[in-house]
Amino acid sequence: MLSKSQISFIKSLHQKKYRKESGIFIIEGIKSITEFINSSYQLNSIYYTHAYAPLLPNNLTNIKLFEVNNAELEKISTLQTPQGIIALVHIPAKQEIDLNSLKNSFSLVLDDVQDPGNFGTIIRTADWFGIKNVICSENTVEAYNPKTVQSTMGSLCRTNVSYTDLNSFLSKIKLPIFGALLEGNDIYKTNWGNEGLILLGNEGHGISDLHLEKITTPVTIPRFGKAESLNVAVSAAIFCSELSRNKK
Amino acid sequence: MLSKSQISFIKSLHQKKYRKESGIFIIEGIKSITEFINSSYQLNSIYYTHAYAPLLPNNLTNIKLFEVNNAELEKISTLQTPQGIIALVHIPAKQEIDLNSLKNSFSLVLDDVQDPGNFGTIIRTADWFGIKNVICSENTVEAYNPKTVQSTMGSLCRTNVSYTDLNSFLSKIKLPIFGALLEGNDIYKTNWGNEGLILLGNEGHGISDLHLEKITTPVTIPRFGKAESLNVAVSAAIFCSELSRNKK
Repeated sequence: MLSKSQISFIKSLHQKKYRKESGIFIIEGIKSITEFINSSYQLNSIYYTHAYAPLLPNNLTNIKLFEVNNAELEKISTLQTPQGIIALVHIPAKQEIDLNSLKNSFSLVLDDVQDPGNFGTIIRTADWFGIKNVICSENTVEAYNPKTVQSTMGSLCRTNVSYTDLNSFLSKIKLPIFGALLEGNDIYKTNWGNEGLILLGNEGHGISDLHLEKITTPVTIPRFGKAESLNVAVSAAIFCSELSRNKK
Repeated sequence: MLSKSQISFIKSLHQKKYRKESGIFIIEGIKSITEFINSSYQLNSIYYTHAYAPLLPNNLTNIKLFEVNNAELEKISTLQTPQGIIALVHIPAKQEIDLNSLKNSFSLVLDDVQDPGNFGTIIRTADWFGIKNVICSENTVEAYNPKTVQSTMGSLCRTNVSYTDLNSFLSKIKLPIFGALLEGNDIYKTNWGNEGLILLGNEGHGISDLHLEKITTPVTIPRFGKAESLNVAVSAAIFCSELSRNKK
């Protein structure tokens, strides 16, 4: 049985302000939780309904465990249809981006992506294509937003997501910067080389003017029909796919 | 000023049951509304705040117009941040799929896609790549769900979305059926020919067993990292892109 103060603490983590204050975020579902347990993230506690007890791994040292009933789980869950198990996870300490680690690989750079579902889908797609680093402008939506976490389907624990002042980051970096734009080189004829950044813009305004001049290769996905633009997670996916298609 | 019964009628259209009963759905935002006005869809009425009056096109015969205040608009909107203008649109009569019209082109076929955001994004992507037809199983989420409509960003009015008994449809059709599966031919080496169906499955369960045997070419997007699967709208986009990349 959870105390009122436990319930109210976990519910407070539905909000960004309290996640930031406590340095803790929520993940839900046995698959994600198992993946986070086996990652470098540090879990704080797990709240599970009876049916999930046998599914918990054995190596849960230093993680507080609470068996809860369905009514309690519904109170603390961020989901309309809770998945029977919730964990609280420590937000890792902010680390400087190691510029050397970006060499000889491709990374995604997000300029103010706002929708948590789009952001989570981008992280999941990056993980599918073996892209390790997602570098975000400071105004990009929070990686620990429950909707972002849920849309990553566990991929958050395998992806380095960092926030930085994009302008200064893009000024320092010596890699090719491919910008996803409505006008640019045909993505199907782009020579990617073996390293670079893929810069993707905000859902409404695209890439901000400030960063346009940093782009070394503007790239566009040719349009065959009439839609005015593509969803940013869709663009990211097509870029990841094009980068990868010559690897196999 | 709207009457109570007008407000309650429009609010009822937030629910599928009443959209079905009345044959009317809601679209929001001046861009979408302008695109629907210029399409084959028939608009019933438009509710706009004062600022949007000058943006209304002139050719609005047979469409009832109501200037409303912000408080009224907030009541009838499906959005957390209403966009100042809403229209009610008639759901077109269900038409039999013209099998001949599917020849010499590619169409998307959705087997029980459930998330309205994914569905809307798929329609938007199809429209970008010039794919005219999206054929859905009867249990696919409703095209007139406000979240679907919103995610299509206007592309709904340029795309033929039809619902059908997939099993009988796939049995009748004589076109190649490319199935998006976790195991299959490498998508980057697939010979698409010049026509076919792209079959995409449900978010949780993929393509249902019933339809697997109808697939003539199983196709997979190679995985380079560790995510267990891709979001269905992302898969759809990579299929659309691969189909198109040799056209230009």
